[in-house]
Amino acid sequence: MTAAGRFPVMEIFGPTVQGEGMVIGRKTMFVRTAGCDYACSWCDSAFTWDGTGKRDIRMLTAAEIVSELFRLGGESFSHVTLSGGNPALLARLDELIALLHDRGIEVALETQGSLWRDWFLAIDDLTLSPKPPSSGMNADWAVLDQLVAKLTELNRNYSLKVVVFDETDLAYAGEVHRRYPHASLYLQSGNDDLAERDPAVLLNRLLRRYEWLVQRVMDSTSLKSVRVLPQLHAWLWGNKRGV
Amino acid sequence: MTAAGRFPVMEIFGPTVQGEGMVIGRKTMFVRTAGCDYACSWCDSAFTWDGTGKRDIRMLTAAEIVSELFRLGGESFSHVTLSGGNPALLARLDELIALLHDRGIEVALETQGSLWRDWFLAIDDLTLSPKPPSSGMNADWAVLDQLVAKLTELNRNYSLKVVVFDETDLAYAGEVHRRYPHASLYLQSGNDDLAERDPAVLLNRLLRRYEWLVQRVMDSTSLKSVRVLPQLHAWLWGNKRGV
Ligand code: SF4
Ligand code: SF4
Repeated sequence: MTAAGRFPVMEIFGPTVQGEGMVIGRKTMFVRTAGCDYACSWCDSAFTWDGTGKRDIRMLTAAEIVSELFRLGGESFSHVTLSGGNPALLARLDELIALLHDRGIEVALETQGSLWRDWFLAIDDLTLSPKPPSSGMNADWAVLDQLVAKLTELNRNYSLKVVVFDETDLAYAGEVHRRYPHASLYLQSGNDDLAERDPAVLLNRLLRRYEWLVQRVMDSTSLKSVRVLPQLHAWLWGNKRGV
Repeated sequence: MTAAGRFPVMEIFGPTVQGEGMVIGRKTMFVRTAGCDYACSWCDSAFTWDGTGKRDIRMLTAAEIVSELFRLGGESFSHVTLSGGNPALLARLDELIALLHDRGIEVALETQGSLWRDWFLAIDDLTLSPKPPSSGMNADWAVLDQLVAKLTELNRNYSLKVVVFDETDLAYAGEVHRRYPHASLYLQSGNDDLAERDPAVLLNRLLRRYEWLVQRVMDSTSLKSVRVLPQLHAWLWGNKRGV
């Protein structure tokens, strides 16, 4: 018997509204883990891996994470989102998922899809977000193929999400759609101004970017069965963290 | 053998983005039928039933509707939303749904849930939106109970959507959640300024209303497994019709 695992936790917050992707609008708590195997140019959570948030990282057991969730959220939530960084770096996150399920809480995961974990099968809402060219990363199609195949075969509730900043990213999203035609695909307009402090100024930029993406997708004959969404939390609260 | 049915169609438009509810963000075409058995105080489609849009109503067969959809949308869509008014007033809308399914098109329906049609069972994404007190309508719980029971029993993909303008509506949404705890529930912040012509002014109002609703739901211990969404199309395009 090994001792209970400890997980590097960057922040725990909520309840708040899930601002993006397949469970957009859902009332949820967030657990943001530290560490990522990528280094996307426009990462909005770079503090989880670039050293700037190092002093905020706490090594917590699953039980400690659960008590903090209930301390913050009381009896007001039924959904927890695991985000990062890349939570898939943590081999034993199944311990946390099991504790949450025991309490009747559903669990969502956001990961770029760079590696498989068996505990993905316990996730209620799984988002794979392969990174488009503008990120500077090179997503490994072979790994993604395997993940999508397993999740499909085992009939899991998952989706693909591609953040789109420009035409090259849009072509990449098209490639994802062709490759996995039966997977739910969410296109999300990217936030290219993470430094903007004025939510009203940011909102204007984000609206224009979302409208551009909507227009491009509406005109496309290859991007058919897709959803195009903004990041609601950025529209509401700008670049503020922990909301 | 009767001749093919004709349906009162108010407008056909798209492709555009579904701005609200369970398929938010989905690229879709809209078919808006004329006529409603309700007369909600804040109806944003009152032209479908109050006489002001009367001259725009066309009596079309299902085949004519389908050709107009393809004339407008070409090969760029795979989803059609039936909205109104109340499309459930039309007994034989299954004719249209069958033609669309033959072409591989998915079909969504938006109805307040005031009456049952067997063709509901053919709908891929069904939204029941019982009207809260601010509408001035009195939703019939007994009818809604029946609809929810049938859709649940037959394992259909449906959701409930409640538009919320004020605290009384919020209490009503809570009642819906208690009554149908296993149904997906979407709360939507209402647009209380249908006359505003300036999208920027409207956007500000809508953002504040959405933020208020988010805050109220986050604080609630009874509204747990819910989604809170705005109307994306109103954020983008204001009160403009046909987008
Ligand atoms: S994969 Fe996600 S968390 Fe990691 S660097 Fe990219 S955007 Fe940031
Ligand atoms: S049920 Fe819908 S279409 Fe009918 S009056 Fe109410 S809001 Fe308008």
